[in-house]
Amino acid sequence: MILKELQSKSIKNCSRNELNVLCDELRSVIYETVMKCGGHLASNLGAVESTVALFYTFDFPNDKIVFDVGHQCYAYKLLSGRLDRFSQLRKAGGISGFPKRTESEYDCYDTGHAGTSVSAAIGLAKARDLQNEQREVIAYIGDGSFNNGLVYEALNSLKIMNTRILIILNDNDMSISPTVGGMHDMLSQIKESKKMENIRLLESFGLTYLGVKDGNDVDEMIDALQEAKSLLKNGSVLLHIATKKGKGYEFSEEDPTNTHGVPPVGAPKQREYSEVLGETLCSIAQKNGKITVVSAAMKESLGLSEFFEKYPERAFDVGICEENASVLCAAMAAGGLKPYYTIYSTFLQRAFDEIIHDVCSQDMAVTFCIDRAGISGADGETHQGVFDLSYLSLIPNLAIACPKDTEDLKRILEFSATYSHPLAIRYPRAGKVLFSSEETDIRLGKWEYLYKEDGANATVLATGERSLIIAMKALQILQKQGKTCNVVNARFVKPLDEELLKELQSEYIVTIEDNVFNGGFGAAVNHALMKLEKTCKIKNFAYRDAFIPQGSVYDLQSEYGVDCKEVDKYLLEVLS
Amino acid sequence: MILKELQSKSIKNCSRNELNVLCDELRSVIYETVMKCGGHLASNLGAVESTVALFYTFDFPNDKIVFDVGHQCYAYKLLSGRLDRFSQLRKAGGISGFPKRTESEYDCYDTGHAGTSVSAAIGLAKARDLQNEQREVIAYIGDGSFNNGLVYEALNSLKIMNTRILIILNDNDMSISPTVGGMHDMLSQIKESKKMENIRLLESFGLTYLGVKDGNDVDEMIDALQEAKSLLKNGSVLLHIATKKGKGYEFSEEDPTNTHGVPPVGAPKQREYSEVLGETLCSIAQKNGKITVVSAAMKESLGLSEFFEKYPERAFDVGICEENASVLCAAMAAGGLKPYYTIYSTFLQRAFDEIIHDVCSQDMAVTFCIDRAGISGADGETHQGVFDLSYLSLIPNLAIACPKDTEDLKRILEFSATYSHPLAIRYPRAGKVLFSSEETDIRLGKWEYLYKEDGANATVLATGERSLIIAMKALQILQKQGKTCNVVNARFVKPLDEELLKELQSEYIVTIEDNVFNGGFGAAVNHALMKLEKTCKIKNFAYRDAFIPQGSVYDLQSEYGVDCKEVDKYLLEVLS
Repeated sequence: MILKELQSKSIKNCSRNELNVLCDELRSVIYETVMKCGGHLASNLGAVESTVALFYTFDFPNDKIVFDVGHQCYAYKLLSGRLDRFSQLRKAGGISGFPKRTESEYDCYDTGHAGTSVSAAIGLAKARDLQNEQREVIAYIGDGSFNNGLVYEALNSLKIMNTRILIILNDNDMSISPTVGGMHDMLSQIKESKKMENIRLLESFGLTYLGVKDGNDVDEMIDALQEAKSLLKNGSVLLHIATKKGKGYEFSEEDPTNTHGVPPVGAPKQREYSEVLGETLCSIAQKNGKITVVSAAMKESLGLSEFFEKYPERAFDVGICEENASVLCAAMAAGGLKPYYTIYSTFLQRAFDEIIHDVCSQDMAVTFCIDRAGISGADGETHQGVFDLSYLSLIPNLAIACPKDTEDLKRILEFSATYSHPLAIRYPRAGKVLFSSEETDIRLGKWEYLYKEDGANATVLATGERSLIIAMKALQILQKQGKTCNVVNARFVKPLDEELLKELQSEYIVTIEDNVFNGGFGAAVNHALMKLEKTCKIKNFAYRDAFIPQGSVYDLQSEYGVDCKEVDKYLLEVLS
Repeated sequence: MILKELQSKSIKNCSRNELNVLCDELRSVIYETVMKCGGHLASNLGAVESTVALFYTFDFPNDKIVFDVGHQCYAYKLLSGRLDRFSQLRKAGGISGFPKRTESEYDCYDTGHAGTSVSAAIGLAKARDLQNEQREVIAYIGDGSFNNGLVYEALNSLKIMNTRILIILNDNDMSISPTVGGMHDMLSQIKESKKMENIRLLESFGLTYLGVKDGNDVDEMIDALQEAKSLLKNGSVLLHIATKKGKGYEFSEEDPTNTHGVPPVGAPKQREYSEVLGETLCSIAQKNGKITVVSAAMKESLGLSEFFEKYPERAFDVGICEENASVLCAAMAAGGLKPYYTIYSTFLQRAFDEIIHDVCSQDMAVTFCIDRAGISGADGETHQGVFDLSYLSLIPNLAIACPKDTEDLKRILEFSATYSHPLAIRYPRAGKVLFSSEETDIRLGKWEYLYKEDGANATVLATGERSLIIAMKALQILQKQGKTCNVVNARFVKPLDEELLKELQSEYIVTIEDNVFNGGFGAAVNHALMKLEKTCKIKNFAYRDAFIPQGSVYDLQSEYGVDCKEVDKYLLEVLS
């Protein structure tokens, strides 16, 4: 295996034929590992040849490369000494699915969110210049990320920063969904032209343009990179390469959206909140012609395929442009529509200012449907959705709801259709527990008891399914020992149910949430109880103040502050 | 006065000569009002003719216009029935310096932060389409805002959204500072060409391009707008107009940066924190060659003119690109430099995700120097810096410091030069009180007593100058009545001084901050005291959960929850 030989032999001494064999080997390791561990398949398969060519042409880790988002760094990891550890991809303590400075000196800058690579490369290049170092700095970015406003800001600053970088634009016509928008149309025109030609805009930005017709051809890539390397002496270069997402595996080439990220083979299938989101939005949109849906390049994973088919005139995928999506929603609401902005928790961080400035300051009837909230698991630090309760709670005019289960999401969405102010609904990816309760009517800021017993000396306030599972398990354990506690579904994190809080009789109050403590649910409950001059003793279970790495959801919950055993232990202790 | 006659006569019945007289009248009202009330001068003077031409050509309020940022909407306000109220510009309860839906039906969308207008216009246009309304929607945007990534995202989505808008690009070569970057260079080339010509990129985005050589010529503007209106039948149009910032007042034309925003004549001059920032950064940069400074289009108002002159190779103004600035800093730190990101509190909201994802998740040694923190006053809702302690406190790895006065800013900056992790320093615009204390050595997370008396039954924990002024005044009032309290300069909001908190003996603890309560300083203190199982009684003074409108800083502080009289009253009561 040539890949193994590279531990002693330099890739630069490989023949062109050996490089092609190496590509096949890399592709095979990536495929087998992803089938076992889950991960990003199609994007990584498409980047193999260009990565091999980069290693052949440049000198890593002295030269530096920033992978935008990082969905295409597996071949790079395998070529930089991580073959042995690669079987632990995305496992706790194992190889990250994204670039990680702490993992290898070859990883110079961590990524995970879209559009940072060009800015980062410019910053690294400037550090090189000011410290008189000799190296090249490369940003490797997909056409999906190239839609993001941050990239435009970075390109715009290239001449101001007075430095030089190489940008590799890996153009496969895809984000997770197909790439959309004016920039993509322009890139397509260029790709389809006989000779891939210069762009005047890029010249204004101080970039020399080079095009590669087949970015999955190692020879062509090496020739182009050598030309780019030589042009870098005069200034920055944009190398536009046309590649095939999923390259080499027919099922992936043919369905790059569904093979972008894949679960391990044999992973248990749960009921996804996104399915309920899609079904319910379709149903309420049928009754209400003002409902629109906006997504930022991930309509499929958010459960919206059906909505986009049924209501194409009211469904908008604007590409990886979280800020634009937020303002579009605010303005559609200003114009009398009822928009739903569907997004992952961690990516909504990008629209923080627009949530404040455009949606909430104007008190617009925008509903945020926030998927992958709480710990998201194997993707690690950059993808945990553990900050949203905090960064949303501080915003005036915004209500925040957490469904107790997938059925509850449906009810809250139906409530949202009647609600004419900003509303955020946050939920994890998947659930399976269904909590029943007598009261199913959703009212703003109203909680419900899932279990209540007169005289219970402890009450657990839990928000969202994961927290309620912990609360209900604790109740079972208590009951086995002849003890008890009340369990409350704190369906709204904002506003809190002040009436219920006021009437609490228990001496011990426990809060549980799938979020960091600072600024979150428990902190809000503490303050409300303080203002009510309650003398109860409060114990908060929330994540501690840290970035949470990759691992299984359950293990990470326990390790970072929401350990169900600790909840049981606390309740057994105080009730003994 | 033609302006007054417009209450009964339509502008559409004015002769071209009358329109020119009207422009002079508008300019004069704007100048006189701004001299009295303060406000944005140069930008509003430059927009007079184009606004008159817009009113002549379109039908407001049925047609809708979104002013980007809003620094150029005064003439529009005067032409839409607000002449009588205009003398109360920027006063509490008076006319806002920005578009405000609550103020007039002519204002269809609130702005204040840069780059939202194109997205907003698209959203409004889509609402029109889906509801079969007949109107045009216009985005009016300056070349400074045109640098912002959000605009690129919006342009990129124009074809996806399948609608039509008119974009007026008001190009005066200026943000607050001169406009910079590749896009600006391209626009300049076009302006300098004999005939202002089409841009291929804009065609890809689905825009037809029109150029106006003199956007301060009413006739030329009317002709161009009529052509644009007719072209709108076929799709979106970008009308690029060259204007003169400060038009009509020589002192403003010649110094548009310093006449962009002006204080009322005779306003008292305080010591600005920005002056200390500039001086101190120059001084530490002299000793440390790794220090760099990044600004987003406002180096002058942040006090950095001298730094930019002295260290041009280490000073970067990247235009209104807050996200890019943040990633550049993270990457420069990754490359071994020591970057300082200087910005206003409210604009830093734009970089929220990058602070988490790029700076703090990678634990980079970036220092954020956050000016205009707390209530900022006359600019109103969109410019209050009252969220930063909350949205920063929730981020792991980030320390947060609040200087007690301008001298303390200097000391904290000197501390920052030795600190190799993310650090945010936040302070209001101006101060004049200097608090002395014995201990001036800055240590991470260490507070200091400004006044301490054995056995004092109340302790006030105050963070930042404004809060400390309230605390020290309360102390004086108590002392006059033979009572006392301790006063603590809570210099770090994160980490808290747990040791000091642990040793607190007072029965009553008061917290004061210039920030909303949710997720802020008081909330953090409450939690720390709870964990320490302190039995003291806590009273928090912070802003309530609301968007705070324009007014004087002192009045707004009182009205929204930090009333010095209430602090005095509380302390007198509990200590009686």
